[in-house]
Amino acid sequence: MPEQITLYSAKICPFAHRVELALAEAKVGYNRYEIDLANKPEWYAPKVNPASKVPAIAYGGPQVSPDLPSPESTKIAESLILVEFVADLYPESAILPKDPVQRAKARFFIDAVSTKFLPAYMGPIAHGQPFEPFWDALEDLQRLLPEDKKYAVGDEYTAADIAITPFLARMEVLMELGMKNDIGAFKEGEGKKAAEYYFESGRFKRFVKYFEDVKARESFKATFDADHIKEKYTARFAAQVPAPAVAAAA
Amino acid sequence: MPEQITLYSAKICPFAHRVELALAEAKVGYNRYEIDLANKPEWYAPKVNPASKVPAIAYGGPQVSPDLPSPESTKIAESLILVEFVADLYPESAILPKDPVQRAKARFFIDAVSTKFLPAYMGPIAHGQPFEPFWDALEDLQRLLPEDKKYAVGDEYTAADIAITPFLARMEVLMELGMKNDIGAFKEGEGKKAAEYYFESGRFKRFVKYFEDVKARESFKATFDADHIKEKYTARFAAQVPAPAVAAAA
Repeated sequence: MPEQITLYSAKICPFAHRVELALAEAKVGYNRYEIDLANKPEWYAPKVNPASKVPAIAYGGPQVSPDLPSPESTKIAESLILVEFVADLYPESAILPKDPVQRAKARFFIDAVSTKFLPAYMGPIAHGQPFEPFWDALEDLQRLLPEDKKYAVGDEYTAADIAITPFLARMEVLMELGMKNDIGAFKEGEGKKAAEYYFESGRFKRFVKYFEDVKARESFKATFDADHIKEKYTARFAAQVPAPAVAAAA
Repeated sequence: MPEQITLYSAKICPFAHRVELALAEAKVGYNRYEIDLANKPEWYAPKVNPASKVPAIAYGGPQVSPDLPSPESTKIAESLILVEFVADLYPESAILPKDPVQRAKARFFIDAVSTKFLPAYMGPIAHGQPFEPFWDALEDLQRLLPEDKKYAVGDEYTAADIAITPFLARMEVLMELGMKNDIGAFKEGEGKKAAEYYFESGRFKRFVKYFEDVKARESFKATFDADHIKEKYTARFAAQVPAPAVAAAA
């Protein structure tokens, strides 16, 4: 019988979102504590996660207020480790497939997300770099999606889908903001162009369909606050002065 | 009942060595095919691993000669995925602890090996860069070793130990070569100094003891061919002309 789980999370953070998805998929009750990433509580690093990042879980020990973490609970960090931890605690959930070959396929997809998709994702999304390497990485990942199944490794939603869902969700918000308001860490006009290319070029047809299926899940609806993300991103990127396209090209 | 396993490996490769350790720990019979990394067979990338790296496993399908891989077997790559695959196929082995908290600790150790130890390892070992960042990374990892237990997460030898064992083994060979013959990707005299520092400064006492325990295991003795590694490293590094210390300092 699993013990108490306290999750330290932040709505904005895609890594923390992974763990919320895993807990929702496993239908686990837990204590959730929102960490303000811009102003972390003093006790967080020394008492919960020395790396001072979310997500982290305090597992077991007495039921205490999350802001007074007990030394008796085990503290665990790193989003992918936590997703597997939830899967191990609740083996009856479908988070990790029962079949070793399917598990290996899920882990191969996750590895591609970590080592190929994410490094390419950060460039245009957060640093205003060109989109092309990101489109290529997205296409490579798309190639791993089975044509005839709903999710990354079959018709069950697994850790493989959990690994990428939060990033697709945030990418879509940024695309939408870029399309409507030209907001983003890009040069003027680039956000709109990128969004049109993503949705309308046909190059990412399988991915767009895949994400429709992902978004339809209850776990997604229960854990993604699109308005909050939109507001945060709008504030973050509006604070940057985008370089006008002409000046930047000079 | 697990099906046939064909492992594509290379004695020199630390990543492939991980999978050999896992198979030895699980006491699994398997077909082993040595890939010459300097001269890979033409069929390897198209029929086994598109990334053209070792290790890879062909799992299941008919019993065939390894150099004629069957399209009916499942091909799986990436060393850490393969270690978990072996653990999943043979859950009675101790490769992954039964307790979810212990599993999470093993995975946290593995993550530290991948994201902190390995990037620091390659610098001095393969590229002749300064040792200091590597010593710091080694010390960080050493801090994760329990003082009162034999291995990385307890008294059982697990995936955490498997992840680092091949790198420690190769590091020790290089230290030995550096100490005796000043061979390595370092400036003249640096190999000897580094080896003395590692073994004699006392800074890595816990690590040196840890590796003694690791080396004593049957799985290690059965999978590590020190003479082969020494010969390969001697040939590789002798081919490099080391920069004399004085000129490099100028």
